[in-house]
Amino acid sequence: MLIVLHHSATPKDVGNIKKAIIRMGLKPVAIPGAERTAIGVIGNQGWVDDTALRGNKAIQEIIHVTKPYKLVSRDFHPRDSVVTLGGTVKVGGASPFLMIAGPCAVESREQLLKTALFLKKTGVRVLRGGAYKPRTSPHSFQGLREAGLDLLDEVRKKSGLLVVTEIVSPEHVERVAEKVDILQIGARNMQNFDLLTEVGRTRKPVLLKRGLSATVEEWLASAEYILVNGNPNVVLCERGIRTFETATRNTADLAIIPLVRKMTHLPIIFDPSHATGRRDLVLPTALASVVVGAHGAMVEVHPDPEHALSDGPQSLHFREFERLLARIKRLAAFQKQTLADA
Amino acid sequence: MLIVLHHSATPKDVGNIKKAIIRMGLKPVAIPGAERTAIGVIGNQGWVDDTALRGNKAIQEIIHVTKPYKLVSRDFHPRDSVVTLGGTVKVGGASPFLMIAGPCAVESREQLLKTALFLKKTGVRVLRGGAYKPRTSPHSFQGLREAGLDLLDEVRKKSGLLVVTEIVSPEHVERVAEKVDILQIGARNMQNFDLLTEVGRTRKPVLLKRGLSATVEEWLASAEYILVNGNPNVVLCERGIRTFETATRNTADLAIIPLVRKMTHLPIIFDPSHATGRRDLVLPTALASVVVGAHGAMVEVHPDPEHALSDGPQSLHFREFERLLARIKRLAAFQKQTLADA
Amino acid sequence: MLIVLHHSATPKDVGNIKKAIIRMGLKPVAIPGAERTAIGVIGNQGWVDDTALRGNKAIQEIIHVTKPYKLVSRDFHPRDSVVTLGGTVKVGGASPFLMIAGPCAVESREQLLKTALFLKKTGVRVLRGGAYKPRTSPHSFQGLREAGLDLLDEVRKKSGLLVVTEIVSPEHVERVAEKVDILQIGARNMQNFDLLTEVGRTRKPVLLKRGLSATVEEWLASAEYILVNGNPNVVLCERGIRTFETATRNTADLAIIPLVRKMTHLPIIFDPSHATGRRDLVLPTALASVVVGAHGAMVEVHPDPEHALSDGPQSLHFREFERLLARIKRLAAFQKQTLADA
Amino acid sequence: MLIVLHHSATPKDVGNIKKAIIRMGLKPVAIPGAERTAIGVIGNQGWVDDTALRGNKAIQEIIHVTKPYKLVSRDFHPRDSVVTLGGTVKVGGASPFLMIAGPCAVESREQLLKTALFLKKTGVRVLRGGAYKPRTSPHSFQGLREAGLDLLDEVRKKSGLLVVTEIVSPEHVERVAEKVDILQIGARNMQNFDLLTEVGRTRKPVLLKRGLSATVEEWLASAEYILVNGNPNVVLCERGIRTFETATRNTADLAIIPLVRKMTHLPIIFDPSHATGRRDLVLPTALASVVVGAHGAMVEVHPDPEHALSDGPQSLHFREFERLLARIKRLAAFQKQTLADA
Repeated sequence: MLIVLHHSATPKDVGNIKKAIIRMGLKPVAIPGAERTAIGVIGNQGWVDDTALRGNKAIQEIIHVTKPYKLVSRDFHPRDSVVTLGGTVKVGGASPFLMIAGPCAVESREQLLKTALFLKKTGVRVLRGGAYKPRTSPHSFQGLREAGLDLLDEVRKKSGLLVVTEIVSPEHVERVAEKVDILQIGARNMQNFDLLTEVGRTRKPVLLKRGLSATVEEWLASAEYILVNGNPNVVLCERGIRTFETATRNTADLAIIPLVRKMTHLPIIFDPSHATGRRDLVLPTALASVVVGAHGAMVEVHPDPEHALSDGPQSLHFREFERLLARIKRLAAFQKQTLADA
Repeated sequence: MLIVLHHSATPKDVGNIKKAIIRMGLKPVAIPGAERTAIGVIGNQGWVDDTALRGNKAIQEIIHVTKPYKLVSRDFHPRDSVVTLGGTVKVGGASPFLMIAGPCAVESREQLLKTALFLKKTGVRVLRGGAYKPRTSPHSFQGLREAGLDLLDEVRKKSGLLVVTEIVSPEHVERVAEKVDILQIGARNMQNFDLLTEVGRTRKPVLLKRGLSATVEEWLASAEYILVNGNPNVVLCERGIRTFETATRNTADLAIIPLVRKMTHLPIIFDPSHATGRRDLVLPTALASVVVGAHGAMVEVHPDPEHALSDGPQSLHFREFERLLARIKRLAAFQKQTLADA
Repeated sequence: MLIVLHHSATPKDVGNIKKAIIRMGLKPVAIPGAERTAIGVIGNQGWVDDTALRGNKAIQEIIHVTKPYKLVSRDFHPRDSVVTLGGTVKVGGASPFLMIAGPCAVESREQLLKTALFLKKTGVRVLRGGAYKPRTSPHSFQGLREAGLDLLDEVRKKSGLLVVTEIVSPEHVERVAEKVDILQIGARNMQNFDLLTEVGRTRKPVLLKRGLSATVEEWLASAEYILVNGNPNVVLCERGIRTFETATRNTADLAIIPLVRKMTHLPIIFDPSHATGRRDLVLPTALASVVVGAHGAMVEVHPDPEHALSDGPQSLHFREFERLLARIKRLAAFQKQTLADA
Repeated sequence: MLIVLHHSATPKDVGNIKKAIIRMGLKPVAIPGAERTAIGVIGNQGWVDDTALRGNKAIQEIIHVTKPYKLVSRDFHPRDSVVTLGGTVKVGGASPFLMIAGPCAVESREQLLKTALFLKKTGVRVLRGGAYKPRTSPHSFQGLREAGLDLLDEVRKKSGLLVVTEIVSPEHVERVAEKVDILQIGARNMQNFDLLTEVGRTRKPVLLKRGLSATVEEWLASAEYILVNGNPNVVLCERGIRTFETATRNTADLAIIPLVRKMTHLPIIFDPSHATGRRDLVLPTALASVVVGAHGAMVEVHPDPEHALSDGPQSLHFREFERLLARIKRLAAFQKQTLADA
């Protein structure tokens, strides 16, 4: 931690701040400058709680060198984590590129089963489908909720696919964990800390989406909530951020994928459907996620997107998805070969 | 609703879209243009679910003329709503400017009681204090939780002040509603729809903060969740939005206060402490909220901000708060006089 | 300057970086931490050019304690600057609240003269009017350009008002400076450094608008370009920033006005017309600028806003402007009285 | 164009607006809705100037269906434009992926020549190098300016490479156009319309970077300024946008590359160095630009990045660049094969 003092700070101010640091069990080191003094803090293990210093009028700025997370950091766990889904499918490290696909929302047995059987045929092993749908307006379709969960459970048994679904409330954790294989935390709930804590108490794999306006640091700190509670099975999912640009639904932040891989050992996948909001941009950005090093992608596919109850404009038709999957496989194989050659 | 077609749309496309609209029970009106055709939709009551149209390749854009909320709109409820807090204090319409104050977090009986007695003396009638504290890092202080609630209940009985506290989980609603007078939904939970639904099932006044990156439209749609579930007692709270600027903690969006007052009948207050994150900006922005038409303000005050366990740098000292209160009262009186003269 | 090293930096890395700092004529001070080392740099006068250090693989982050500007900083010029416009009107410090008003664009002699005579009557002393209009589309009205300048010159002579107009190209400086009293640098040109340099070589007062997505620090660094070239007569103008919110044209960043006043000695005014883009938000936000401490405001007014060639929706009618002026005067007087009482 | 009226608009308002539209030589079509009326406008060729309507109190919103640009639109020029650089190198359409490389700033003859000869050897045909450097602070290195231009001219003659450099002022156009092959408009000048107009009057290829906070629509409207003035040789360059995220220098908006290719016939390239600001993210994002369909990339490379006078942390070493070039070539060949197979 570095404490930058105001131009006008007096030697007495410096003395008081040093004393406060010592009271915190840490060691202050003064760095006098031409224009102002700064004080470095030594001796801490991990994040320093700076509350005893904040608000001091002689202080201009407090700069934390140590990050607000530890367990998710690559500093403390240098090797890639590999998360096992449903006991069989691996994601992270050198595991094959993971493809998750399915409709935005579970709408009916027929829709879900049709999609599952189609995906099964293509070789996809994980089905997505929302039972609880967070929607901006209460007047929009909210998902089939409990009935949707039952359909997911039924279809995963029939198809042998693993299933991921969004969970929106801490009190649903037990119920949902029984019926699906992976718990998804949506963008709007990335800082729903009670929910993070609750899924942290299970051992179920958690797919943690980045919040609409969350920094990478905040996102990793949210993952830390899950690990700190005992669940190491976290997969991150970049899904676009909110910016001033409205030509796409969100701004796909693909550059942070290789960056996040340096910061954390956790696997990270990409959601091109929400990141762009446009069917015609799903393929190119999904391919881009392969080359920047994502461990997988989650794509919306629907038997009849024109009549989907939500997110139709960004859902792929079956034939479009087959094309995407073929392109991704080919690119992933090329990428692997390239890396092996290097 | 207006449907803008692509340059390349054929008469057959136009025909199909018209049929789809008719199947929805609505009436299409074509607007042929020099470069492209648009189709207006007539006959709807409120928001149109456009899912049967989205994804149609001949469509370039769907523009909703009707908003995703109705009950909160001033179109449907032209007069100001006045919300009564704890049976005694009114906010909204021509009620006096409401001041809510207190520490960010409940830290101890002594801290809370000291603050309450101080506020009581100044004439403030509503105390704020967080029992459940959502924090970015799991390694930061998380609030006293249940013990904090008990302290709030104890202190409101001793002091006679009303109490507002943040609620973070749907399953806490009953418990929290017994011990406080106003339920606060924090910025991170503005789209926690299960939580909104749950507080909508009570009759407790709800203080709904704007999300970090929520548009005004999304914010009002979140309020609609509460009203739709039967609770009309919603007070909005602008607390700054996230932008590229880092000189202040958030960007105080004061201009939307008069705008929101045109869009909705609900009362709106301002939180200068979170909007700016700096003690020295609390006074000027709180005064600004008075002149732009806010119905009140919520300000962080602490007996000893330098040792606060959270948000110390933005909390006022008692003497600073007294000064702020005096300035606000004087300005509100001036403002009222000016409006009376007009 | 503080240099934060990577977790993996070796003692040799530390040694090399220290040597590089010494070669720069400065003094390194190591701050060993539990997890990583940081190196403080002492001995610099002003901003350090860090190019010899950037790119070093052992370095995680370089933190500049000293700011990228010096002449505009209050650290180096503690007292408020007062800028004199046209030899007669003062802005800044304790000068009266300055009102600048006029049409977005100069459209015709009649329009400009009519506005000038109206303003003269109300006591306003500075007229705004764009001769060169930067417009997003080349198909929109671009201003009367040279003819507009001549009209401004003619009208200022007839009315006795001072005139401010936007300047968009370095080669126009001489020509424009002859015909108007204040040179405005628009938001789009805030980092047109050749233009800043050129107006810096005159002694004409410069109204420097904040860029659409400029941080406060970048804005002050742009002002520094003008001062460094010899022209101390700079007035800053906050005009809203671009954010995700589209309900207003821009987001009025009123909170930075008191902040900027702490950082710099230069006067700062507010432009409620561009900051909000809506006629009905001009009055409340202009009043807000008074209470947060702006030294003035610049407001669009037009004899016939419904037929204005640009920015009609945010321009006030004459009668609306009179009302605004009366409200501002009354509030400014109240504010002055309040401050005198304190 | 669609005009949405307020809830409270009267039949008389509707009549007046219709008359205004007729006076504009266009045809109004009323679309009465359940809650409010809208009026469609028919008969326009291109963008409608709405100034006669804006400010009308009965109007809630004016929605432009037609875009603020025409010549750059794919609607009006369906086939890809191919721009020829220096009479020999082609970019756009099915031309090979274009690689532009070189230092951020021209620093010395030795630095530039060394880089040029290195690039020549690798097969790169276009050299970048800044002579005029726009820098946030006047205290930072501003480029060698005229001397830098001379060096660029000398080195292009010696090496046979084409040269691109940034132009910052309209009065420099003639001089710069003599000494380089491609004129670059930087992000800060994307809406410097006098500069756009001036380069539009030449026939020199122009590399138009996207502004820091420019929407795609604004960017294309800026390109329109160049085409409207007679110069069709425009190449767009995505270089990242400013968002709330600070982990990368900018946010690389890769998803808009395939989108822009649908909207316009102009070629588009990607600048991974400025988009990310980190050397380690240049390779992955450059590869991503290939798969999303960019026509080329512009990369910063420096003989000694650790001592570069600007942008060192994002410049590649020669050996890193060779690796990047090999990876890009291999990926581009794969991509071409894949597209040929499809």
